[in-house]
Amino acid sequence: MSELKIKAKKASECARELATKTTTEKNEALEAIAQQLLQEEEYLLTENEKDIQIARNNGTNEGIIDRLTLTSTRLKDMAEGIRQVISLTDPVGERLASIERPNGLQIQKVRVPLGVIGMIYEARPNVTIDASSLCLKAGNAVLLRGSSSAIHSNTALVNVVQRALEKTTIPVEAIQLIEDTSRATATEMFTLNEYLDVLIPRGGASLIQSVVKNASVPVLETGVGNCHLYIDHNADTNMAISVAVNAKTQRPSVCNAVETILINSNWATDHFDSLLQALSDKNVAFVGDEKTRSFDSRIEAAQEVDWADEFLDLKVALKVVDSLDEAIEHIHQYGTKHSEAIISEDAENVENFLNKVDAAAVYHNASTRFTDGFEFGFGAEIGISTQKLHARGPMGLEALTSTKYIVHGTGQVKG
Amino acid sequence: MSELKIKAKKASECARELATKTTTEKNEALEAIAQQLLQEEEYLLTENEKDIQIARNNGTNEGIIDRLTLTSTRLKDMAEGIRQVISLTDPVGERLASIERPNGLQIQKVRVPLGVIGMIYEARPNVTIDASSLCLKAGNAVLLRGSSSAIHSNTALVNVVQRALEKTTIPVEAIQLIEDTSRATATEMFTLNEYLDVLIPRGGASLIQSVVKNASVPVLETGVGNCHLYIDHNADTNMAISVAVNAKTQRPSVCNAVETILINSNWATDHFDSLLQALSDKNVAFVGDEKTRSFDSRIEAAQEVDWADEFLDLKVALKVVDSLDEAIEHIHQYGTKHSEAIISEDAENVENFLNKVDAAAVYHNASTRFTDGFEFGFGAEIGISTQKLHARGPMGLEALTSTKYIVHGTGQVKG
Repeated sequence: MSELKIKAKKASECARELATKTTTEKNEALEAIAQQLLQEEEYLLTENEKDIQIARNNGTNEGIIDRLTLTSTRLKDMAEGIRQVISLTDPVGERLASIERPNGLQIQKVRVPLGVIGMIYEARPNVTIDASSLCLKAGNAVLLRGSSSAIHSNTALVNVVQRALEKTTIPVEAIQLIEDTSRATATEMFTLNEYLDVLIPRGGASLIQSVVKNASVPVLETGVGNCHLYIDHNADTNMAISVAVNAKTQRPSVCNAVETILINSNWATDHFDSLLQALSDKNVAFVGDEKTRSFDSRIEAAQEVDWADEFLDLKVALKVVDSLDEAIEHIHQYGTKHSEAIISEDAENVENFLNKVDAAAVYHNASTRFTDGFEFGFGAEIGISTQKLHARGPMGLEALTSTKYIVHGTGQVKG
Repeated sequence: MSELKIKAKKASECARELATKTTTEKNEALEAIAQQLLQEEEYLLTENEKDIQIARNNGTNEGIIDRLTLTSTRLKDMAEGIRQVISLTDPVGERLASIERPNGLQIQKVRVPLGVIGMIYEARPNVTIDASSLCLKAGNAVLLRGSSSAIHSNTALVNVVQRALEKTTIPVEAIQLIEDTSRATATEMFTLNEYLDVLIPRGGASLIQSVVKNASVPVLETGVGNCHLYIDHNADTNMAISVAVNAKTQRPSVCNAVETILINSNWATDHFDSLLQALSDKNVAFVGDEKTRSFDSRIEAAQEVDWADEFLDLKVALKVVDSLDEAIEHIHQYGTKHSEAIISEDAENVENFLNKVDAAAVYHNASTRFTDGFEFGFGAEIGISTQKLHARGPMGLEALTSTKYIVHGTGQVKG
């Protein structure tokens, strides 16, 4: 048996035990993990340093090294994150419906854990702790498969987690790391339907697409966002510019940042220059269609791929449209159904946009950057679902649960 | 472009239009379909007769021919089924949550249609109408891919449906049949993520497993049920026997029928003979473990495969167990997480069984045969989900919807 299968089998056994644990038991385990993380700072930073050294030797860029790096402050933030999860309501056991049938059957629909969750993720070691604490709170066992570039950090983190769990009533194998980071292990996870209830990939578009295409285990697809901002004919000028700048530049590397701005031709006539200047002041580079280029020669001609790609950078695609319908059609053609916004004072257009654009989150007069579990008030998030089944948009603890019908009878048989 | 891709693209366009249709428009279309089915009885029965003739020529067994056969009464039942769907509450537009954030953002979570649903199903032509009416009511377009053995019936039914839709505001391509019933078409559907939002397979275990294993489009897995009845040490004798007979024999060919009965050794000592006699009176054949065979020599030795298979027939596997835990372990090892029942007067055992057995529906003192959308009061069902994501157990209209966050702001940007 491979490392993966041995650990998956253990996780599956643990999941049955976890499903019967009380909220108090789970919270005590989470608190033990938070404390252990702080106690073992020296060990964690030493192991993390090994990953950083390897990354430097490989000429990894500073942005990625920064994401990989653990510090005393970041460990405190992780512990704080765990304590926030402790403060969240336990979804398990929640009664979602209570039905009494004419034949006397009493049917209850209750929330139960999903079972075993496989996380496949890249680079950042904080995902190891974030995902583990959310999975545990919702009563699930988790199999973590991080990237080779963070293997020392992830191994150390899971060692610390397991040393904490040893002091609690939660089984140690509730949280396990797959130490073999070869591609073959990930591929093996894709089809491990016998033990895994769901796979959650977190990382770049190619990782996520590979999981979606190849997994027979059900997948919660997260994260790819080619988001649009549509500035309508009578949009408030300052609001439109302020939201455009925020949605593009506040943090360009994330999935809810805007990649294309669609501008109504009437609005563009008077305000295009101001919009461009405001974005230019933030060092944004431009590609655009013919009309936008007639407004400003700094705009390079957009290629087909520019409408479809996530730049994840200080770069934006601009297009002038003649109507709301043209904007909606463009979004339908190129969007990834993540987050889409309209800035408008035209109530009918707003209504049409919000109803007709098919996305996890649609915004009126606000930045797309708010699509986030914390900003929505969920207290935490395991990712942002861009699929339509099970969960859509920011996923909190509830997305890590399933349901079960519990039926009480007095000997009823079907006639 | 293949027939499938052309129709899938049309379905995708229709889905956007359907999402904005009112409940009245959808109900009027459903009523038009019901009337058209009754008006075109002669055409439908003539076309159905072609499938029946081919089936007879192929030596198909009478059970399958019966399921394939349309009659005047069955058409009236179909029309009646559609009218029941009309009477159901439209789930689209339902507000599931309303959140006001400290920054003033107003977030609403609302139900929206899933989009385009691909149904892959076997034999029974009534699925063509059942699935179409449920998908339409929930605002979805549907692509139907039935089996070649029902191709004349399915083609005629969809022709009738489309002639009805022509008289309404609902686009005709909201309901389309894939006429090419080759295996290649089904395989092409598996990976048509560009146009399909979900696949729902309905049929035998091999069809369902083929879809689950090979589809990259998200799947709603339905139907395979290796269900158990556990008779506890102090179970009411008459109740245990009556539920066992009902769960096994009332309709043995369906997924919520019981395949294995686990009998506590204490109960078995006094009542095994009565149980066996009652089942034997209904012509049930037996396989069992050593202990059951020591009770009655009519029981054949169970092979490993007998614990795992759905017999879907008047045949049951019997096993004597010494404890509740042994019963739960057996169910964990062989069950398909569909429906599981305990007959017991021991409150602690009941509680443990209902909590620890992981299944879509768990029963205390009632027959597993109640796992069904009609019996649960949903008014209709598209299938019984045996997966944990999105929907579990009987799936009504809500399972055919997704959600969307609609966010209203006043120019909020992320700080």
